[in-house]
Amino acid sequence: MAGARRKLIVVSNRGPVSFSRDESGQRIVRRGGGGLVTALRSLVAHHDVTWIASAMTDEDRVVAVEAGDEAIEEVARDGSSYRLRLVAVDPNTFHRFYNVVANPTLWFLQHYLFDLANASIVEPELVRAWDEGYVPVNAAFAEAVLAELDAEEDATVFFHDYHLYLAPRLVRERRPGAALAHFVHIPWPQPDYWHVLPERMRVAVHDGLLANDLVGLHTARWRDSFMHSCAEIIGAQREAEEALYRDRRTLVVARPISVDPAEFDELAEDPAVLERQRELREGRPERLLVRVDRTDPSKNVLRGFRAFELYLERHPEAHERVGMLALLDPSRQDISEYAEHLAAIERAADAINDRFLRGGWKPIDLRVEDDFPSSVAAYKEYDVILVNAIFDGLNLVAKESALVNERDGVLILSENAGAHEELGPWSISINPFDVDAQAEAIHQAFEMPPGERAARLEALRAQVRANDLGEWVAALLGDLDRLAAPA
Amino acid sequence: MAGARRKLIVVSNRGPVSFSRDESGQRIVRRGGGGLVTALRSLVAHHDVTWIASAMTDEDRVVAVEAGDEAIEEVARDGSSYRLRLVAVDPNTFHRFYNVVANPTLWFLQHYLFDLANASIVEPELVRAWDEGYVPVNAAFAEAVLAELDAEEDATVFFHDYHLYLAPRLVRERRPGAALAHFVHIPWPQPDYWHVLPERMRVAVHDGLLANDLVGLHTARWRDSFMHSCAEIIGAQREAEEALYRDRRTLVVARPISVDPAEFDELAEDPAVLERQRELREGRPERLLVRVDRTDPSKNVLRGFRAFELYLERHPEAHERVGMLALLDPSRQDISEYAEHLAAIERAADAINDRFLRGGWKPIDLRVEDDFPSSVAAYKEYDVILVNAIFDGLNLVAKESALVNERDGVLILSENAGAHEELGPWSISINPFDVDAQAEAIHQAFEMPPGERAARLEALRAQVRANDLGEWVAALLGDLDRLAAPA
Repeated sequence: MAGARRKLIVVSNRGPVSFSRDESGQRIVRRGGGGLVTALRSLVAHHDVTWIASAMTDEDRVVAVEAGDEAIEEVARDGSSYRLRLVAVDPNTFHRFYNVVANPTLWFLQHYLFDLANASIVEPELVRAWDEGYVPVNAAFAEAVLAELDAEEDATVFFHDYHLYLAPRLVRERRPGAALAHFVHIPWPQPDYWHVLPERMRVAVHDGLLANDLVGLHTARWRDSFMHSCAEIIGAQREAEEALYRDRRTLVVARPISVDPAEFDELAEDPAVLERQRELREGRPERLLVRVDRTDPSKNVLRGFRAFELYLERHPEAHERVGMLALLDPSRQDISEYAEHLAAIERAADAINDRFLRGGWKPIDLRVEDDFPSSVAAYKEYDVILVNAIFDGLNLVAKESALVNERDGVLILSENAGAHEELGPWSISINPFDVDAQAEAIHQAFEMPPGERAARLEALRAQVRANDLGEWVAALLGDLDRLAAPA
Repeated sequence: MAGARRKLIVVSNRGPVSFSRDESGQRIVRRGGGGLVTALRSLVAHHDVTWIASAMTDEDRVVAVEAGDEAIEEVARDGSSYRLRLVAVDPNTFHRFYNVVANPTLWFLQHYLFDLANASIVEPELVRAWDEGYVPVNAAFAEAVLAELDAEEDATVFFHDYHLYLAPRLVRERRPGAALAHFVHIPWPQPDYWHVLPERMRVAVHDGLLANDLVGLHTARWRDSFMHSCAEIIGAQREAEEALYRDRRTLVVARPISVDPAEFDELAEDPAVLERQRELREGRPERLLVRVDRTDPSKNVLRGFRAFELYLERHPEAHERVGMLALLDPSRQDISEYAEHLAAIERAADAINDRFLRGGWKPIDLRVEDDFPSSVAAYKEYDVILVNAIFDGLNLVAKESALVNERDGVLILSENAGAHEELGPWSISINPFDVDAQAEAIHQAFEMPPGERAARLEALRAQVRANDLGEWVAALLGDLDRLAAPA
């Protein structure tokens, strides 16, 4: 994965660290989590990286001001150094960008989450948030990139995700020769669904992305949808792996992200994880169904509960023997849709528990907390793990859990999770809208003969180890090399 | 439009007549409405037609039993005779077919109306309704078609719409050489959205349709989506206008349906219409915004009200001068989604009226009734007509209203209505999800200079008169001729 050392300008909304102050007023640096940040940290170890990210906390803003529009030197957990440049905008602008456009609009759209019959979608608030939030934040990111390119004009710029669809065009207009790449970590919906946005917005999204030389998505399915919507919405031509638009070519690739197996080998033996695992074992039912997710509507927690309810309805023999552990990290609770969704999840679990509760047996153990050691402990202990996302760019839970499981656990996997392209053959595939079939899948998973369980888990693991995070990085750097090669 | 007289077996869920009993116990025949039935009636005048339809009323069932599985002779309004064969199944089976599968599932799916984040979609009830409703009703229709083909083996079978997706395959299996055509009158969604259905159902829909020699849809957009989902879901190959699948070719065409201008010329002078028009004129505001729809969620009444509210908010000068007349035909009220939707419409109108009500001025005049003469009167009287459907196969209101309007009225038209492919150039296009832009469109329409209003309406009319219902029938019969021609 190493290859030649490169100059990379990594650009993402969330950065690798965030700053705050402790009680004594001392500045604290917290190295953030999240799949994307974890994945990109591996770039820092091998390349000359400048990372541009949003100043998200108050203290981030102070750091940005102190830096005076310059990058600061930072050191990663493994000791590698990199440069960090924080982009600060005023909190109202950031709110419009993040809490109106990026999450409840673009994220919802790209996961097909809108209630098209009823939801408020393009209200005046969104139009304003686009013009006074999404556009200026993207412009500020573009300015930061341009400043870094002034210093290092042969660096490759590597944008990430749905927060930054407009920045590449703004950079391209001023640096026609720059090497620009963009990775979209979430699904790409088909063009009809993009019609939810006003024409100028849907055009700007596609026009912005095709200002890059390289666009990456996780799967062939999302790549094909992207090509299709570029054709339909901005008239781009597809030619094999390339989109032709405004006299430029953009290479569009499918590169499924992955995890670092060594990290999970270590985590499996981490004292905090072992402690949680002991606790889990003491209280566990005979057979354990696990789900680990953020409380995002795309994760489909409610239909998962409903499927478990149907399973219990149909299989009285499972009562008091089977339990579901739902570990849910509360997500984006400052957005009303997300807060309402979490409340609905809690009500649904209560209703099912009220219905079936008997003796010491509570069918659903719902824990709403951000506790990664508990998640890894649950990965080790599940007999069946349910990943039933409505749509999901990839879904790392499906990969992480297989690496550390100790019980020949079975994966039930949504056909709309990006990971399904890789892991489908060794999982039980389900349609996330079909609670009837999900109930049957739970039964089938628990009843699977031991030999088959072991063989499937073994194959899943082999797949994840062979296509690990290093492979993902190497593949994308290889794509960049193809671009750099003379045409 | 006439051409050679043909033997046609027309197959649709709703037939051209329905039977009931009056108070004295006498059988009454009611010639039904609905765009599809009206459109197909013109076939009866020129061809040798056997019409196969569901027995929907109790008396329909009595007629079906009396007929003893034979067609009966009927006479159309214009005096032409045709044969009618009613397909009777027991009411539970019909309920599952119609009120569980066809409307709240297939109609919702094809109009993108599901709340994918939350709605109950594939529950055990749907699975049962498919197996014990949709499948047996389609089988019963297929049996009726086969019986008619026994009598007239060279007849062309012409299926209609989403109720009958499985019947063509059942007929094809027993009559490999039969001439089968199918017209889909509603939108075709892109393949991701078909994934809402369990695989066996989505496959059966596409497999059933490609058992036809000809499939028609209203627009190039729906045709392309159909081709795309046939490729993605059942692996059909596209070759120009044909889909290749299971060693057969299906010609797939875009043929926008239309209206009969002569019928509307007459209606405009109909005494009932003139009476309603007089009443309308007496009470009308200075400027009248009209919408005429069924109370179907696809019609987007709530966002239309919200746009009008925003318009009033932004234009106090319009208060007491502008009014909205919403004529809504209550639709499918025995389906809970539809009943709830109508209640929401009534609440929304009340809330806006409460907000702006002053003097004698009530901004929204909501009339929930099935009264076609009132609709035609409103078509004559509008200054602006709003057709903002979320998605719509075609939308005949856009065509009908232009034919009879007397005030150089302006059409505001959803870019997701099939009619937009034909009428877009002379309407004000709107995104149905964008209430901000719809409010601006209402303003723009009222402010349009008289000359431009007149010119646009004139062009709309010319388009509708040139591409009338007769043209639609002729085009489809021409397509059948192409099939009959040696390859």
